[in-house]
Parts: sequence; structure tokens; C-alpha cells
Amino acid sequence: MGKDSVLGTDVVAQIGIIVKDIEETSKAFADFLGVDVPSADWTDAFDKAQTHYQRNPVPSRARLAFFEMGNIQIELIEPDENPSTWRDFLENHGEGVHHIAFVVNGMKQVVARMENQHMPLVQKGEYEGGRYAYMDTEKPLKVILELLEND
Amino acid sequence: MGKDSVLGTDVVAQIGIIVKDIEETSKAFADFLGVDVPSADWTDAFDKAQTHYQRNPVPSRARLAFFEMGNIQIELIEPDENPSTWRDFLENHGEGVHHIAFVVNGMKQVVARMENQHMPLVQKGEYEGGRYAYMDTEKPLKVILELLEND
Repeated sequence: MGKDSVLGTDVVAQIGIIVKDIEETSKAFADFLGVDVPSADWTDAFDKAQTHYQRNPVPSRARLAFFEMGNIQIELIEPDENPSTWRDFLENHGEGVHHIAFVVNGMKQVVARMENQHMPLVQKGEYEGGRYAYMDTEKPLKVILELLEND
Repeated sequence: MGKDSVLGTDVVAQIGIIVKDIEETSKAFADFLGVDVPSADWTDAFDKAQTHYQRNPVPSRARLAFFEMGNIQIELIEPDENPSTWRDFLENHGEGVHHIAFVVNGMKQVVARMENQHMPLVQKGEYEGGRYAYMDTEKPLKVILELLEND
């Protein structure tokens, strides 16, 4: 890891893939990997998730399914119809890899450092035991980065 | 790893990102990660690379640059104008994550198993010390898989 790393880590924790039909794609991955089909669960509703997209509170949710690979997690994401980085990606690019994620310490400081470097926060929310932030790094890095902070 | 894994591995060795301007994107990654800008080198010409795309020999090449993360390699790929999975992705999706790669043993057998499961070989070629195969897994898995076999 470089001493001037903005993130404080160089471990890619997760690859996030946007899909239209999470049950179909989960089954395809499970068959291919020779593992059981994982559950596909909805993200929390607004009262818990506090989802904000482009600085506005949004009711947007997604169904998520996870595959634990040897060194990384693959996350499948089926967005609902409400505005989100997930829905936006599906409409602009179609199905495919939406983000790579890093687990960070000091989420607020990392977000502030990135925003100072013209990589703005695009969506954030809470999950059981932690929170996430998607950063708009598509222009410089060609992929969205997700920051994860666990309590 | 599941006992019925088609690949024989569950370690994602590499994330491959298609870019239009490898020097610009390499610099952005290097600045962000706090590391030196890597070299961006052309893949070998046909006499060495033996590149085949959709079963036909092609003169197609790309410039590649690599970032060694803690657990995975990030590869940037700037395709030339000739037909390839790289050029095809850029025209159909724009810049973004093109593939995830696995290092396999017995490339021929893995390719044959995948082709039997309706995931055809789309491009293959040789590099110093090994060879690669891109498999058309976009329909079921929403991302192209690359197989790498090192001697």
C-alpha cells in the first residue's frame, strides 16, 4: 500500500455486480461455483437504512446475494425502481460490475479526503453493524468505489 | 470452494478494466493509491501472442498496466482498433470492468467444461510464460471470466 493512499487499505473486499433478476443470476453463479444458492434479501427500508442518493433521502432498496470466494466477496445487486446508484448503473450500462469495495476505518475522513479530490459521495446508507458510501469515481477510475465501515 | 467447481479454484486473481486512455487512468489510480505509475506495455504481436477472437486469428493488441493490490491485481486495458473482446466491450458498454480472472490448472479441460455448459471461448492468446482465455459468461454471470494458465 502506498504511503499516500487515500483509503488506508489496498485490500479489495468485494466486487459488486448489478443484475436484473437476482434469482436467475444467483443460481447461475451457484451452479458454476458448485455451491449452494445464497438467499437474496432486501436491504432495509428507509427507517433503518437511511438511504441518501445525491444528497436526498430516497426509499430505494435492492435485493442482495453474496458469494464468498477465496479472497474476495462477490455481491449481486438487483435494484428496485427508485433512484439509486444501482438503478442508474443498470439504465446507463446494463448488467455488469458496478463497484469494488474497500473496508475502511474513519469513513467520514475518507469521504472528506475523496470529496476534496473531486470524487463526490453519490449514495450512502446504514446496514446492520455498519454503513456504506458509494463514491463517484467513474470518471477518473472507470469504476465506482464503495467504502464499508463496520462497527 | 464447492466440490463441483468448474474452475477448480475460487480465488479471483484479477479485475480487468477497459479504458480509453491508459496513461490518464493509470495516473489517476496511482495518485489515488499512493503508488508509482506503472508502465503501460503493448501485448505481443501476432507472431508471439497468437491471438484468436471468435475462432479467427486477429492482429488485435492492447496496452496493459497492472496495480498489485493487497489481495488481487487490477489490470487496465486500452484496446487497439482491431476486433477483440476488449474493443467489443468498449463499444457496447463504454469504459468499465470487463472481466474477473482466475488462475487455473489444465486450461484445455476447463475451457472444454465451460463450453459444454454454454459458456464459449471468445478470445485466447499467449503471453510470456503462459496463456489466457476469455470465456463468454456475460449472459449467465453478467461479467466475462478470464482463465490464466502459467507454465
